[in-house]
Amino acid sequence: MNAVKELSEYFSEIMHLNYIQALLGWDQQVNMMGYKSVTGRGEQIALIHQLLHKRLTSEKLGKLIIEAEKVKNLNDIESAIIRESKRAYEQEIKLPEELVIEIAKTTTSAQQVWQEARKKNDFKMFQPLLEKNIELQIEKAKKLETHPDLYSTLIDLFEPSATYDWINSVFKPIKSKLKDLVKKLDSSPNKPEDSILKKHYDPNKQFELSHKIIEKLQFDFDRGRQDRSTHPFTTSLAALDTRITTRTTEPFPDCITSTIHECGHALYEMGIKEELHNTILCQGTSMAIHESQSRMWENFIGRSKEFWTYWYPTFQRYFPENLENYPLEEFHRAINIVEPSFIRVNADEVTYGLHIILRFELEKSLIDRKIQVNELPELWNSKFEELLGIIPPDDIKGVLQDVHWSSGYFGYFPTYFLGNLYAGQIYSYALKLNPNFPQDYEKGEFSGLLSYLKENIHQYGSIYRANDLIKRVTGEALNPEYFLKYIEQKYYPIYKI
Amino acid sequence: MNAVKELSEYFSEIMHLNYIQALLGWDQQVNMMGYKSVTGRGEQIALIHQLLHKRLTSEKLGKLIIEAEKVKNLNDIESAIIRESKRAYEQEIKLPEELVIEIAKTTTSAQQVWQEARKKNDFKMFQPLLEKNIELQIEKAKKLETHPDLYSTLIDLFEPSATYDWINSVFKPIKSKLKDLVKKLDSSPNKPEDSILKKHYDPNKQFELSHKIIEKLQFDFDRGRQDRSTHPFTTSLAALDTRITTRTTEPFPDCITSTIHECGHALYEMGIKEELHNTILCQGTSMAIHESQSRMWENFIGRSKEFWTYWYPTFQRYFPENLENYPLEEFHRAINIVEPSFIRVNADEVTYGLHIILRFELEKSLIDRKIQVNELPELWNSKFEELLGIIPPDDIKGVLQDVHWSSGYFGYFPTYFLGNLYAGQIYSYALKLNPNFPQDYEKGEFSGLLSYLKENIHQYGSIYRANDLIKRVTGEALNPEYFLKYIEQKYYPIYKI
Repeated sequence: MNAVKELSEYFSEIMHLNYIQALLGWDQQVNMMGYKSVTGRGEQIALIHQLLHKRLTSEKLGKLIIEAEKVKNLNDIESAIIRESKRAYEQEIKLPEELVIEIAKTTTSAQQVWQEARKKNDFKMFQPLLEKNIELQIEKAKKLETHPDLYSTLIDLFEPSATYDWINSVFKPIKSKLKDLVKKLDSSPNKPEDSILKKHYDPNKQFELSHKIIEKLQFDFDRGRQDRSTHPFTTSLAALDTRITTRTTEPFPDCITSTIHECGHALYEMGIKEELHNTILCQGTSMAIHESQSRMWENFIGRSKEFWTYWYPTFQRYFPENLENYPLEEFHRAINIVEPSFIRVNADEVTYGLHIILRFELEKSLIDRKIQVNELPELWNSKFEELLGIIPPDDIKGVLQDVHWSSGYFGYFPTYFLGNLYAGQIYSYALKLNPNFPQDYEKGEFSGLLSYLKENIHQYGSIYRANDLIKRVTGEALNPEYFLKYIEQKYYPIYKI
Repeated sequence: MNAVKELSEYFSEIMHLNYIQALLGWDQQVNMMGYKSVTGRGEQIALIHQLLHKRLTSEKLGKLIIEAEKVKNLNDIESAIIRESKRAYEQEIKLPEELVIEIAKTTTSAQQVWQEARKKNDFKMFQPLLEKNIELQIEKAKKLETHPDLYSTLIDLFEPSATYDWINSVFKPIKSKLKDLVKKLDSSPNKPEDSILKKHYDPNKQFELSHKIIEKLQFDFDRGRQDRSTHPFTTSLAALDTRITTRTTEPFPDCITSTIHECGHALYEMGIKEELHNTILCQGTSMAIHESQSRMWENFIGRSKEFWTYWYPTFQRYFPENLENYPLEEFHRAINIVEPSFIRVNADEVTYGLHIILRFELEKSLIDRKIQVNELPELWNSKFEELLGIIPPDDIKGVLQDVHWSSGYFGYFPTYFLGNLYAGQIYSYALKLNPNFPQDYEKGEFSGLLSYLKENIHQYGSIYRANDLIKRVTGEALNPEYFLKYIEQKYYPIYKI
């Protein structure tokens, strides 16, 4: 057998174990377990983790990679299989087991303490564990050493092909433009009015509508499910088993937009071509590209006038007490209000990037030890004022709001905003080639865009890295101007500027 | 480390893999998967199966068993760990992999063909695969060879400590007595009237009531769940995660009684003492003892007058349109009607045993090649007439009704009836020591019986084999007279004999 094929097949068992691991997690999050049941589940997860570790660090795998690298005239899929296998192998083999265990233990307690600290608005309580998390991440980066810069090494775990310098060069020009734009919109005399969204909307009806919408978006229920959970998420439990979850919390229409978001992730996974199933390439190529898909469906489509032209009458029928006499135009404006606010996950698509830039800059300084953890709350607040013009009233609404740092995730945040920027560029090209897409949405027709994305992005799974993929799709490297232009073209009319 | 302890710890990983396997199955049955998702799940199940096989046939395990067997002065738990480990090891190591694979493949197609054949009432269609299943089971029994008699070897897989001869000696005396009793009841002028059970009962209300009932029976929701599925079942996904399922099909109160049945299985699993958790002993000791628990709760308690004295007013409140003016006594008689009928799973507790004896006798002749598969439908029908006095109108209601033979399960059926007999004996002893239990039920108090069962049966998991356990609990070997006496004492008053 060809050495690359052998390498590829070696990973099919690993993929199955990954899927089993995903089911263990999915079940825990979707099917409220009794509190006494959690320990057993932890032991099962640890066992699969250990089985995966063994397979990912085996001598056999090391040899298979060396053999595969000798093969000449590789096609794109073969090269990618070698690249991704080697990446997985090195990530696993470079980290001493004691470090992995210490990180697992520390992040577990850090998450618990963070939850307490957030409840009590007590950053000092969380500080020692955050300090330890950062130390461990620095140690991890030193071991992995995929880049000379430690923070870039951590970013690479979520976004291969991205470095701190590159992201910084992307974010820098957009930062002041976004700041200005937010000010301009926020000070407009024609701000939308969103009290309509604060009324009561029956959660079961919301769920029903969210289900109807993703059906229309061609979420394939023959190979997936939609369930409820506290935090919405998407996970694949097999190449042909992708599941999303929905929550029905306020304010309206969070249930709808967050379900469309997860559906966007799912459509990506569902679009990967069959040839890649059960290979290491059967997953989205990076966090940012994944997020580009979810955010495109959520915001570019799911908050567009055309989308709601089709759906609004149905919503009026479901919620006549609130919407019967409320005009579509005002509803569309209400769900697109732009407003500096404290909580990232509730931020609109214009201010969102500024929330990310703040975290990105702080993470860089923390990993470079240029700032101390005890300075964080103050730095957070002053940076927040600089970027968004408002100061968090407490740390709950400030530095303590995200789970990421307690989980040891440094380098994850920038991928969220990169996702928006990728979405802006991809969608702009899609529209240039298919200017009639928005009219299609008005008729409840979304398959044109899905076909475009499937053809150009989804089918390839992880064959192409994000930076290559964007060039293949759009002919140029990531350029944040597309996103800015999208924002201006969308929001100036809404704000009557 | 002590060799027995080492052996015991070797199995904790195996138990975790078993639990993971159980989750893969539970999810498939409870969370309707898309039809395209099934293949991937099959691959995952096959992988865990393979990991289990490797661990159960390892040289290391073989050596651990030999070492453990040398240890002197073993306590009951240690002896049982060695016994059960050796049993698991030998079952796995004696079977050639090709045979295991052929059985898996043949039973998979046999189940599909059986479903078709049952739809079409076409036994001939199923016949070749049933023949193959029997050949493979004979081959399996020859390889395992735990008993000189092939059928006993197959029985042993479900009911260690039972043989054909022993079961036959238990069933024989009861067979004619049951036949006579059925005739006597069926020809009584005072047969209950059960048209009340054929009315419509809202499925959601039924589910709600079934939930209330198992709560009262002390199903522990901190370490378990109740869900819905097409076929009710119980499974443990960890030592502290036992889940049951409920269906709400007609006739009433099948939903209630089958939920109590599954709850009985779950209470057994939940009662196993902590010392045994994650060891090979953390499971019911045999199918028959498991069934004794489920049937005891379902029939002995769940169809008793005292149980319904407590619950009937609630049911009347839930279903006033049907039950408001219907007397408790008549309702209790209706749910205890005794009637020869064709389908085993719907049979009452008096005729049930005869359905089993029929299968038990046919299985013995099939495995001994004393009868041909093509004779089966005729033999089934003539035996049915002999035992129950009626003849199935077609094979759907006759030889094609059960899934077991298509799945390659020969030797499973007798454990169902043994379970009833064990239940009769255990319950008789429990009542002798605690004559006030039935009065407790009238007050909605069931914890006395549960404590008794936990103390005498549940806590021990698989430490004691069924034949030892029954002697420990009741002081004598299994004696079917207890069950017969229970039946007479219950049904003579209902039938006013």
